[in-house]
This record gives sequence, structure tokens and C-alpha cells, in this order.
Amino acid sequence: MVPQNQIGKSAMMLALFGEGADQMALMKTLEDDGFSVTLGKIGTMESHKIVAAVETAAKKNGIISSELYREEHALYHATMEALLGVGRGVASFGTQLRTVGLRFAIVRGRPYSNPEEGEWLAVAFYGTIGAPVKGFEHEALGLGVNHI
Amino acid sequence: MVPQNQIGKSAMMLALFGEGADQMALMKTLEDDGFSVTLGKIGTMESHKIVAAVETAAKKNGIISSELYREEHALYHATMEALLGVGRGVASFGTQLRTVGLRFAIVRGRPYSNPEEGEWLAVAFYGTIGAPVKGFEHEALGLGVNHI
Amino acid sequence: MVPQNQIGKSAMMLALFGEGADQMALMKTLEDDGFSVTLGKIGTMESHKIVAAVETAAKKNGIISSELYREEHALYHATMEALLGVGRGVASFGTQLRTVGLRFAIVRGRPYSNPEEGEWLAVAFYGTIGAPVKGFEHEALGLGVNHI
Amino acid sequence: MVPQNQIGKSAMMLALFGEGADQMALMKTLEDDGFSVTLGKIGTMESHKIVAAVETAAKKNGIISSELYREEHALYHATMEALLGVGRGVASFGTQLRTVGLRFAIVRGRPYSNPEEGEWLAVAFYGTIGAPVKGFEHEALGLGVNHI
Amino acid sequence: MVPQNQIGKSAMMLALFGEGADQMALMKTLEDDGFSVTLGKIGTMESHKIVAAVETAAKKNGIISSELYREEHALYHATMEALLGVGRGVASFGTQLRTVGLRFAIVRGRPYSNPEEGEWLAVAFYGTIGAPVKGFEHEALGLGVNHI
Amino acid sequence: MVPQNQIGKSAMMLALFGEGADQMALMKTLEDDGFSVTLGKIGTMESHKIVAAVETAAKKNGIISSELYREEHALYHATMEALLGVGRGVASFGTQLRTVGLRFAIVRGRPYSNPEEGEWLAVAFYGTIGAPVKGFEHEALGLGVNHI
Ligand SMILES: [Mg+2]
Ligand SMILES: [Mg+2]
Ligand SMILES: [Mg+2]
Ligand SMILES: [Mg+2]
Ligand SMILES: [Mg+2]
Ligand SMILES: [Mg+2]
Repeated sequence: MVPQNQIGKSAMMLALFGEGADQMALMKTLEDDGFSVTLGKIGTMESHKIVAAVETAAKKNGIISSELYREEHALYHATMEALLGVGRGVASFGTQLRTVGLRFAIVRGRPYSNPEEGEWLAVAFYGTIGAPVKGFEHEALGLGVNHI
Repeated sequence: MVPQNQIGKSAMMLALFGEGADQMALMKTLEDDGFSVTLGKIGTMESHKIVAAVETAAKKNGIISSELYREEHALYHATMEALLGVGRGVASFGTQLRTVGLRFAIVRGRPYSNPEEGEWLAVAFYGTIGAPVKGFEHEALGLGVNHI
Repeated sequence: MVPQNQIGKSAMMLALFGEGADQMALMKTLEDDGFSVTLGKIGTMESHKIVAAVETAAKKNGIISSELYREEHALYHATMEALLGVGRGVASFGTQLRTVGLRFAIVRGRPYSNPEEGEWLAVAFYGTIGAPVKGFEHEALGLGVNHI
Repeated sequence: MVPQNQIGKSAMMLALFGEGADQMALMKTLEDDGFSVTLGKIGTMESHKIVAAVETAAKKNGIISSELYREEHALYHATMEALLGVGRGVASFGTQLRTVGLRFAIVRGRPYSNPEEGEWLAVAFYGTIGAPVKGFEHEALGLGVNHI
Repeated sequence: MVPQNQIGKSAMMLALFGEGADQMALMKTLEDDGFSVTLGKIGTMESHKIVAAVETAAKKNGIISSELYREEHALYHATMEALLGVGRGVASFGTQLRTVGLRFAIVRGRPYSNPEEGEWLAVAFYGTIGAPVKGFEHEALGLGVNHI
Repeated sequence: MVPQNQIGKSAMMLALFGEGADQMALMKTLEDDGFSVTLGKIGTMESHKIVAAVETAAKKNGIISSELYREEHALYHATMEALLGVGRGVASFGTQLRTVGLRFAIVRGRPYSNPEEGEWLAVAFYGTIGAPVKGFEHEALGLGVNHI
């Protein structure tokens, strides 16, 4: 069982693991514990495409409702906070001649033992950022956490 | 063996794991592969104390030389980039009435297969950020990577 | 009646009006429409005192619960967004030799016609920012809106 | 009569009111007191179009001279400061998958009782920011004040 | 004679030169051309002390009037812009465990050939930024230009 | 001879001088002292074109190796730091309706007397930033320094 208050750690682990047995085992544990989880990938120079990829994955997999702005708003701010980690203070890439290749994980559920703390959401990115030249890149990651 | 070009993932994993068997196993693997690793902890409202804690740990454990500004400079910028992930665009906490409790990991070594790419450094933080009230906090993390 | 989706406008108006008949009339309308409202003032060079003043006012007047981090988190981010308007991109003042004198208003309620959009919160500041010299100051303001 | 030193409050009120009797009354008061005022609207994902809309409105209505860079410079910085309030620290929107719909007001005149303090300028925005989906948006505003 | 529109270059050169014949010659040329110039120095970890040092030097040497907020406002924003160059996007130092040692130059005058463009102001800093350890530092500089 | 630890000053001087005898003399001195130097120019509204122009000049003139990411990484961060000085905290221009015309200088070598401090790199920009209207512009500059 995942300890409470660690949806951030869980989301970051899922993104770090990438496809494979570790990722599948952690996803199963999270789902058994009542968390919703989805995963995705995006490679781009344009940050708005990253935001769109996360939203599309979240809606298609029922992490957030397509009908409620409230939920989109919670996800949007968590995503922007995670992107600020990837860009280390800036959430734009191509305008600075950088390209990113990112895996992401979204986890939704109740991380606090007090049930009135309700649902929260974590968005984690892990991948590379670099020049638009193969191999000229280093790792980058970020996490955003928000109430929903 | 840790795949090459993943000192960032390794540092983040070490910080996420916290003390225990997983952390020790990963540290051993990294050291067997020729990487230097050190770990630490800091709880504070003042970001300069975080910078100082990371530098002190790095120097005491021989990750960087105390004699060379070049190495301090590489570590400083990696630390600041990691803090921008923790603060999601801002590297100050107490001035915004937030307190942080962070574990950190520093990994130094050769992540690229081309030996001429030389040594690089990763600094990762994982912990909580929140109001100065017990339990009023959520997770935060960050990673900085630099050549050294 | 205040049109829906305008808790931000309402909060800003309350802060702009200051004490007097206009402010009282708007507060009454908002409360008749089911919104919670509170007002306050703060003069300081330290931004963490502004955050604390808003939180204290919100808790003392029952705008948010003192028991729930979820509500403090919603208010905190709305406050920080509003402060970024006051500081025009920076939420610190004394470190830049500026002092602020601010009135603030907090409004909580249901701004969207769809009841499932739930409760939202607006924090508005209006006042002056300037040198620590009487009269050497100009106006500044900011608004933050968040789901709660 | 508008109290002195409140061109910021006046500009913000004009933008908040939108078309109607309140706006017209305040404009008349300001013009009677010797202030120049203009109003406009812009909906876009691109921040440079907002800057251009404000400049065009200001020049067409004689708020600033088209011939003097000095005046354009004063307006530009006031506009950028106001946009930092709208974007809460960032003056770009589409790159973050956000769209804005804004009303704006520009007020120019002498807000200080000392005549040597000369002319100042206020730019205020009020409107919505959100996802490119109808109704998925909340309010945002900002104010910039500069000497001219 | 200094070519027009180059008060920024002039201020930067004065700060780069430091005391000596080059600096004196350039000061004389600028004063002969009708510009006001002043110089200063500051070493600190606190950015508000830099702002204060620049203001004090400017007032004591008659570059700006102590009586007019308008002039203080112009100088303040030019100083903050120059500090953003020194801190490369951040205008705080000690909170990030950095100390600075800076020379500064302030130049006021008419850089444009059109007399209606009026007076402008340039603030330039040059020096070092680094760890609070002797010699662990590199160069930094910045320039701010504003109409006055 | 250029005093040690002043590659930043040297780069800034080269950019400020522009073409002519002063620039040629300083270049010669630097090259005699073992520094590599290159110069360039770029006018654009898009910051990624500035980054590309600097990289292209640096590679074509042998300041950095085209084969090593390590060197590109050092140059990239120095360039971004210098751009933050030009944009005073923001490294984007066209999105804010600004255009820049910049000269740049890159200097590589050993600025510290201790040979173990190794090679460092300085990137300096000097030019104008303004509205896309002839003459509606003021000076801007920036410097970035990094170990390589
Ligand atoms: Mg938060
Ligand atoms: Mg990097
Ligand atoms: Mg929002
Ligand atoms: Mg101001
Ligand atoms: Mg300017
Ligand atoms: Mg540095």
C-alpha cells in the first residue's frame, strides 16, 4: 500500500519508471488503494502542446470530467507547476531553442487521512530537455500538486 | 547497472526513496558504476540555508572540492535549478510564509557514453512545502543537472 | 443581484471602494446572494505578513475553515496570484526597498450557474506601493481566483 | 470629483464597469477633472496583440502622441505591468494554452497635488482567462501605473 | 563627443572602467555634452541596500531631485531593471546565498536628437557575484534605461 | 594585458565598442593572452534566433566544439543569462511586441590565476530593444558567465 500523502511521490515514480514491471506494479497498488492513474508521452518544442496532451489524457481516461471547468482548472495549475520544474522557472521551450521529450503521470485521489481533505491531483513529468540535436540534452522533471 | 545519461533519475529516486533498503541498493549500484553520491536533509523557511546544506554535504563527502570555485559554481546552479522546481518558479519560501522539509541527493559522474562529455552533477530535492502548521503541506520536488 | 461568474469583480470593487456606503451596499448584495465576504487592511514591507493577514481574516470570519488544509491551500494560491498583480511579477517588497499599504477583500461562493462547479474564492488587493517616504508611491492592485 | 492620486482606481473601475451608465458617468467626471481617457477590448491568445490593441487605442484617441517614443515607452511599461497582473507573473497566454478576453481602460493626467509631479498614466485590464473552451474561464485583471 | 542615444553605453563603460583616466575622460566628455553623471560602489547580500545606495548617490549629486516622486520612480525602475541583469532574472542575492560587489554609474540627459523626447536616465552595474567565500565569484552586470 | 578574471568585462567591452580600432585592439590583446574570441550581430523579434546565432558563431569560429554537448550546454546557459539582462528578467521579445538589434561577443579562456579553475566562457550582448517602429527603442545589454 502506498503511504498516505504521497500522490506526488507516486506520480513521479511512475514517470521515472517508464514502461515495465515496476510501473505496472505501482499502478496496480495505486488503483487498489482507490487512486485514479493515467500515463502519457509528449515530445515538442511548444509548451501548449504539453498542456493539451496532459488534458487529453486526463479526460480520455476519466481522471477529470470533460464537463467541469473546476476540474480542468485544478489540472491546469498542477500541470503548469510541474512544467516550471521542467523548465526551471520558465514554462516555455521552443522560444528558447529547447526541445523536450517527456513522459508524464497523473494521479488523483485522497492523500490525507482526514476524509474532509477530499481529492487531490498530482502531475509529474520526467524526460529530457536540450538542443534540437540528437543527444544534446539532459534530464529534467517536475511535479505539481493541487486540490480538486 | 544504471543506464547511462540517468544521473538525474538516480538522484531523484534516492531522494524519493528515503532511508531504507531501496536507497542503499541504488547507492551501491551507483558507486559500483563509478558515481559519487551523497544524501542530506534540511527543514527551513530560508532558501539560503538549503543552498548551504547542499554545499556543506557535497564538500564534506568529497562530491566537490572545497578549493575550486569551478565546482562550487556547477553545484550552485544545479541547486538553484532544483529549488525552482520545489518552489515552482520561485526559489524563496519564508518570504511567502511557506516552510519546506526536504531530503536531497547529489550524484556526480559520467552520464554520457562519449568520455569527452566528462563529468556532470545532479541535485534532487523531495519533501513537503506548506504553511507553518503541522500537516498543512503537500509534496514538492525538483531536479537540477549541470556539467562540472 | 451580482451577475454570476463575477466574484473577482466583486472582490476588486470592495477593495477599491474602501469603507463607506458603496462598500456596505455591495457586501449586503453579495451576502444576500449567498456569498461569504470579509475585508481587511495591511501595511508592511514583508510579503509574508500580507499572506498571514489574509489568512487570519479569512479564518476569523469563517471564510475558510481553520481545520482544513484544502481550504488554506486554495486561499494561499489565490493570495499569491493577487500579490503577483500588486508586485507586477514579483511577490516581495521590502527586499526591493518598497513598502505597500493595501486593503483587501475575500469573497467565497458559487460563481457558475452549473452547481457542480462548486465553490470558488477571490482575493483582491488595492492600495499603494512605493519608497519608504510619505507620498512617494503609486497605486497597485491584484486579483487571484481559485476553486475551493 | 475623483480624489487625487487615484488614476489607477479610476482606470480599474472603468474596465470593471464595462459599457453603461456607471462607466459613462465616471468617464465624464474624469474628463471634467482634466484627465484623458480611452477604452477598448481585445480577445486573443497572443500577448503582443494586447500590447498592440492598447497602443492603437491610445494613439487613435490622443492619449499618447504617435510621434514620441518617450510616450510609447511610458505606455508600454504600464501595459506590461498590467499584463503581469492578468497573467499573475507571466505575460504570455497562448504558449500556455490560455485565451483571454479583456476590456481595458487608459487614463492619463495629473494625479498628484504637486504640479511638478507632472503627468502619469494608468492602464487597467479586466476580463477572463481560461482554456479555449466556452465557459472554462475565470476572471483576471491587472493595473500598471507609470510617469509620462 | 558621445554619440546620441548612448547613455546606456556610457553608463556601462563608466562602471566597467572603474577609477582611472578612462573613467575621468568619459565623465568629462559626458558633462561637456550636458549629461549629469554620478558613480558609486556597494558590496552587500541585500538588494534593498543596492537600491538605497543608488538613490542616495543620485540625490546627493543632484542627478534626481529629492523632492519629486516622479524622479525617484524613474530611477527606481531603471535600477530594478539593471539589477535583473546582475541577478539574471532575479533581483535578490542573500536569500540565494550570493553576495555582490558592484560599481555603478548613473547618467541623466537627452539621448535623442528630437528635443521633445526629453530627459532619460541610465543605471549600470558592474562587479562580481558569488559565494560568501573570497574569490568564489564571477562577473555580473546590468543596465536599466528609463525616461524621466 | 587584460587582468585576470575579467572575461566578462572584455566581452562586454567588445560588444559595446562595435567595429573599429578599439574593438580590434582588445581582440588582439585577448588573443595574445590566450583567449578565444568571436563576434556577431542579430536583429530579430524571436529569442530562439538569438540563441541560434550565438551558437552558430561559436561553432563556426571554434569557440566551442560542435561535437560536445557539454560545451553547447555551457554556452547555452551563458547565453540565456545574458538574454535575461537584455530582456530584464524575460528572455522573450516578439511575444511582447518588442524587437531587438544586438551585437554580441563570446570570449573563452582561463580567467582565474589558479590553473585548476579551468576554462570559462562569457557571452555579452549590446544593442537596442523597442517597438517595431524606427527609432522607438532604447539600449539594452546583458552578460552571462559560465564554466566550460
Ligand atoms: Mg500548492
Ligand atoms: Mg541545462
Ligand atoms: Mg487559475
Ligand atoms: Mg512603478
Ligand atoms: Mg524600457
Ligand atoms: Mg553563475
